[in-house]
Amino acid sequence: MAQNDSLSDFLASAVDAAKRAGEVIRNGFYKTKHVEHKGVVDLVTETDKACEDLIFRHLKQLYPTHKFIGEETSAAYGAVDLTDEPTWIVDPLDGTTNFVHGFPFVCVSIGLTIGKVPTVGVVYNPIMDELFTGIHGNGAFLNGNPIKASSQSELVKSLLATEAGTKRDKSTLDASTNRINSLLSKVRSLRMSGSCALNLCGIACGRLDLFFELGFGGPWDVAGGAVIVTEAGGLVYDPSGKDFDITAQRVAASNPLVKDAFVEALRQSE
Amino acid sequence: MAQNDSLSDFLASAVDAAKRAGEVIRNGFYKTKHVEHKGVVDLVTETDKACEDLIFRHLKQLYPTHKFIGEETSAAYGAVDLTDEPTWIVDPLDGTTNFVHGFPFVCVSIGLTIGKVPTVGVVYNPIMDELFTGIHGNGAFLNGNPIKASSQSELVKSLLATEAGTKRDKSTLDASTNRINSLLSKVRSLRMSGSCALNLCGIACGRLDLFFELGFGGPWDVAGGAVIVTEAGGLVYDPSGKDFDITAQRVAASNPLVKDAFVEALRQSE
Repeated sequence: MAQNDSLSDFLASAVDAAKRAGEVIRNGFYKTKHVEHKGVVDLVTETDKACEDLIFRHLKQLYPTHKFIGEETSAAYGAVDLTDEPTWIVDPLDGTTNFVHGFPFVCVSIGLTIGKVPTVGVVYNPIMDELFTGIHGNGAFLNGNPIKASSQSELVKSLLATEAGTKRDKSTLDASTNRINSLLSKVRSLRMSGSCALNLCGIACGRLDLFFELGFGGPWDVAGGAVIVTEAGGLVYDPSGKDFDITAQRVAASNPLVKDAFVEALRQSE
Repeated sequence: MAQNDSLSDFLASAVDAAKRAGEVIRNGFYKTKHVEHKGVVDLVTETDKACEDLIFRHLKQLYPTHKFIGEETSAAYGAVDLTDEPTWIVDPLDGTTNFVHGFPFVCVSIGLTIGKVPTVGVVYNPIMDELFTGIHGNGAFLNGNPIKASSQSELVKSLLATEAGTKRDKSTLDASTNRINSLLSKVRSLRMSGSCALNLCGIACGRLDLFFELGFGGPWDVAGGAVIVTEAGGLVYDPSGKDFDITAQRVAASNPLVKDAFVEALRQSE
């Protein structure tokens, strides 16, 4: 009980930080159309950094002994060293391309791992005002209402999400489109919305049935969403079907009913 | 002036019809998670038909001499016969797969052609409460605020949208994923959101820079969006670069600056 109480406090603090960062993102989002291109790039960098600073400052003040991993900080200082300590893993602005273009799938993602296990998660889309939350053992919520993963058991009726990624070398591109070709022959349709964290939340609330992504940025893309998916009755796993490794830059997610068929389809798509 | 006045009346009537249909869609959207699968299929059919009936009844009462083409009616009665008469072309529910899954890109699309030219357009997403409107010669708007297509002139910085379509035979799938492979090597990234009409509106408000789709359902997917794009300073054209044919089930759209490069990239992707 004491632990759940403190997990609830951690969640409340993360929600508070995400909402504040969301306001910064929202302000920037509606500005991108009114600045020159160089300005847009600066605006992204500024927004990213301002949000990460704001979130880290807020959480470090409350939890000075916790560890912190952020996309911006890690980009500046190199490798991610995830320990068993309570660790806040933050993507201050997931969906950067969407932010630049004004496409409404952008979010703040905040996850807390304890013993390397995603334990508290917050993903907030400030444009659509959708707040996804999850606490290990206590369920997942969208704007305070309980959510659950879909009950779809057939691949052919499943809606799949993935992303084009950022690598454009021929071998990555070929592998990626071959995979899409193979999977499209087996599922109902495909969505690409440009945010890994929001794709995970799509699985959690049943808007999407299947999601995988290979080669995304880092643990900050998945740390918040992972606990939201599992608390919604979904599964997060390696696309091979093995256990999910938050540092591996490989993720798949679905409900339990369709997992085996999805893993087999992913295997056949290689 | 007299003509513009009547076009404004046409638009107001179409907005009224779209908002009423939007309410029916919104009610159904939040129900899909709570009915059995057969129920979902029925719900789609019911919602589609109820919306088309509602829109047609509303507009036929006001404009009894106008012609009407609707997705549902055409599906039941066969070929589309577009004449020079004022013709309302209606997709009562674009993004049916999204509707079933609860993915928030669904809309009502209403277009009016006069002399086969898209002249009045309304596209309404009742989940995100976004109302796109356009009148030939009078600009395009999102929730009453003027919108314009992006000013992006470089393919490599452009955000592309397309759809996976519904055909799953090997030759269509191969052509489609080869096209995506070729285009992905030239653009910034790819979005697939599942609604042709909303993709056109994405071009109109600059969220997307490039859009094409081959083999979609019919003129109801594009009649509303086409005038919104052109009134926002964008272009709607055949993917070959030739003139847009509203009955051809082929569409491309972008701003004028990037059109030639996009058409060339589409040509190279065949």
